[in-house]
Amino acid sequence: MDYTIGDAFWSETIGTAILLLLGAGVVANAILPRTKGFGGGWLLINFGWGIGVFAGVYAAYKSGAHINPAVTIGIWASGAEEFAPGIPVTAGNGVLYVTAQILGAAIGASLAFVAYKKHFDEDADPAVKLGVFSTGPELRSYGWNLATEVIATFVLVFVVLAFAKTPAELGPLAVAMLVVGLGASLGGPTGYAINPARDLGPRIAHALLPIRGKGTSDWGYAWVPIVGPLIGGVLAGLAAGAYIA
Amino acid sequence: MDYTIGDAFWSETIGTAILLLLGAGVVANAILPRTKGFGGGWLLINFGWGIGVFAGVYAAYKSGAHINPAVTIGIWASGAEEFAPGIPVTAGNGVLYVTAQILGAAIGASLAFVAYKKHFDEDADPAVKLGVFSTGPELRSYGWNLATEVIATFVLVFVVLAFAKTPAELGPLAVAMLVVGLGASLGGPTGYAINPARDLGPRIAHALLPIRGKGTSDWGYAWVPIVGPLIGGVLAGLAAGAYIA
Amino acid sequence: MDYTIGDAFWSETIGTAILLLLGAGVVANAILPRTKGFGGGWLLINFGWGIGVFAGVYAAYKSGAHINPAVTIGIWASGAEEFAPGIPVTAGNGVLYVTAQILGAAIGASLAFVAYKKHFDEDADPAVKLGVFSTGPELRSYGWNLATEVIATFVLVFVVLAFAKTPAELGPLAVAMLVVGLGASLGGPTGYAINPARDLGPRIAHALLPIRGKGTSDWGYAWVPIVGPLIGGVLAGLAAGAYIA
Amino acid sequence: MDYTIGDAFWSETIGTAILLLLGAGVVANAILPRTKGFGGGWLLINFGWGIGVFAGVYAAYKSGAHINPAVTIGIWASGAEEFAPGIPVTAGNGVLYVTAQILGAAIGASLAFVAYKKHFDEDADPAVKLGVFSTGPELRSYGWNLATEVIATFVLVFVVLAFAKTPAELGPLAVAMLVVGLGASLGGPTGYAINPARDLGPRIAHALLPIRGKGTSDWGYAWVPIVGPLIGGVLAGLAAGAYIA
Repeated sequence: MDYTIGDAFWSETIGTAILLLLGAGVVANAILPRTKGFGGGWLLINFGWGIGVFAGVYAAYKSGAHINPAVTIGIWASGAEEFAPGIPVTAGNGVLYVTAQILGAAIGASLAFVAYKKHFDEDADPAVKLGVFSTGPELRSYGWNLATEVIATFVLVFVVLAFAKTPAELGPLAVAMLVVGLGASLGGPTGYAINPARDLGPRIAHALLPIRGKGTSDWGYAWVPIVGPLIGGVLAGLAAGAYIA
Repeated sequence: MDYTIGDAFWSETIGTAILLLLGAGVVANAILPRTKGFGGGWLLINFGWGIGVFAGVYAAYKSGAHINPAVTIGIWASGAEEFAPGIPVTAGNGVLYVTAQILGAAIGASLAFVAYKKHFDEDADPAVKLGVFSTGPELRSYGWNLATEVIATFVLVFVVLAFAKTPAELGPLAVAMLVVGLGASLGGPTGYAINPARDLGPRIAHALLPIRGKGTSDWGYAWVPIVGPLIGGVLAGLAAGAYIA
Repeated sequence: MDYTIGDAFWSETIGTAILLLLGAGVVANAILPRTKGFGGGWLLINFGWGIGVFAGVYAAYKSGAHINPAVTIGIWASGAEEFAPGIPVTAGNGVLYVTAQILGAAIGASLAFVAYKKHFDEDADPAVKLGVFSTGPELRSYGWNLATEVIATFVLVFVVLAFAKTPAELGPLAVAMLVVGLGASLGGPTGYAINPARDLGPRIAHALLPIRGKGTSDWGYAWVPIVGPLIGGVLAGLAAGAYIA
Repeated sequence: MDYTIGDAFWSETIGTAILLLLGAGVVANAILPRTKGFGGGWLLINFGWGIGVFAGVYAAYKSGAHINPAVTIGIWASGAEEFAPGIPVTAGNGVLYVTAQILGAAIGASLAFVAYKKHFDEDADPAVKLGVFSTGPELRSYGWNLATEVIATFVLVFVVLAFAKTPAELGPLAVAMLVVGLGASLGGPTGYAINPARDLGPRIAHALLPIRGKGTSDWGYAWVPIVGPLIGGVLAGLAAGAYIA
């Protein structure tokens, strides 16, 4: 069954909201004070994000489940004709996809804030509270941070575009596993945004929400997890267009 | 093959018993004294519960494997006509499903008590011993705790109801992964009941069983993991009824 | 394609050898001195055993991949007519299956000893070295230890016998996940033998091998991980015979 | 669709590059200073490598996805007629496969170096920095180290060659899980090269790259993770040729 671009808009919104609800949620669980998962470690965080993708992809079945502008732009760069069955690749549709993704990401992170409200009310470093919403580098160096995001997003989009060439019946589990692995392997320096909406939407939410003891939203870094994943997505789409046949 | 409501009753009982046996079991392993898994961490607990769902769903194949009143009420709210093939959505059948789920949960938690009997006999904070059976919040605040349970259960039921729209051959692994992720991401504040039977049945068992050094069963909190998941399940069913087509 | 009982004998031997090679291996990695996985925790051990089953089941495709006497006896108790396609349930075939399983388990544990030889040569508590081979309780109490093994094995065999009723294309991954979860949830008191061959074969190997600083093979406990799993397997087979239809 | 040996060359190069990018990446994340995953533990590393294989196998769909000379030589030893559909087993094709694998591994490790550049610039033991690229034993003993690599690679190749005999729709997830388990279970002594290209390509990269505070590339050990996996692969191929039918 084909869906309209209107269906796709809400599909991307809902899917990205679920992604961020689980993604921001697992970070909250791992780093905010007095949670049951406090100090649960990096693999816990990787599974939370991976399964956030898993759940979000199931929910976003009307739109091809991009839930990531880097995927949307990568599909465009690959030369494909449709974002999803019945939805042609056009600039207007692309803008609607990305808008829905940013909107959904902001909503999802806000719901995670509600779920962890009492823990946000505890005393904690403002950078920790921001870390639930948006990514930040361990060693700030815009060029190298950008390179890390480009590389990780390239792998994400390239491998996703190659999924269809190998028979398997994993459905959304395939991309979930891939995201677990990308976090484990390439998340160390910057926290693996690998998705501009995942970072920008929650950063806007962080700026707007009444978070107790809130600090800066670190807008100086905000361009890195936007530009890096977009470059990585375009490169992966071009590579896939040339390689995958 | 279709089954009767009598088959479904025992199916839900057995499935929920297995869920709680593994679910309460992993908590016992992680927090009771002198177990091999003591201090094993939050991801260990998440996998134990996720695979508890996995095993319980396989065992409950005669009833559509709800093993959770929030799923049963969500199916009703979605406007579906059957709880499982051949079992119509009626109030009477709903009551039988939920009764079986609570009964099974009490049995399963009691079996976990047997499996860990010698460790329950060790000295430990009574709240730790209760924690094997039922959930409790890290920061008690009924309203916010309720919100957390509503949000997490909404995601569970909504995504489960969306599973059928995406091709995959994961069977019970899909819901198992989802539960691993919900625990990782949204279990931090309240311990993710996301299932009224999972909490109420074991709390009754805790009250009745001769547990050495037992304290209160904390009935003051008991309504939260009942009401929250029911609200989440109804909202998810309504949303699925409107969105999933 | 059907295989002979001779094929099945070697199939069970090889499959159980691979199970024990990975199972004993992960324990060695987690508890012997100076390994890369030292102190890796309970979930690491659970994944090692679960994937040991995964690999062993693939290797044992000619015999229905029991690789566990509790499964063999459970199939008999369930009233099934064949151990595997073309291999009828007879006492003689059962004895050959179990003999192969014990033999394979001893071989697999011995190969794990070779893989970790330099780490066995380091100073360590003799009980730690035995722990790589065979299970032992954290709190010795034969009756309760037996109960734990009965319960855990019941779940293993009952759920395995229910697999065929639910469509999925997970193959050996289903039983692998189940074993990960049984270890996480019910392995805390006794180390989840849930398989008489898994415990007896390696205990024999421990008694025979020239392990530096070796202590007792703890034969006083050896009957528990044999009798408990056999009881659990029979009960599960009977329950499956009555319930699964 | 069949591909040419030229397609296969680039397929192996790309697949092995992705394997090493994620594999070296997860080690960097776990052991280099000031990463988000620092101290993340052995299971984190196992998942990173397992999903590295997962992603690499998807990317290498044009060549049968060996991405490991031990698999290539094992297929030859098993008596198979093709490395992949349309690509016959010949010495020339084997050399091209292995060349591509070593090249890809060097590229992938170099990309991981770029992704973690700022962390490589921090002060750390030169052995730690080498450990991101190549394997090394915890207890140096060439004979026993070799035995460990032979045993682990035997299991890898033998079980991979048995995959086709058991129905499942796991696709690349099967080998990913197997690699997670081999790392968990048999990686403790030597770090589980189980793949000559995985070790040699990055060791060459380590020797060539301008890594701050770099020490020796430990060429004295380099033959072990080449010879051991080749022996294991040949033995597994011979065993599979005799057993799997």
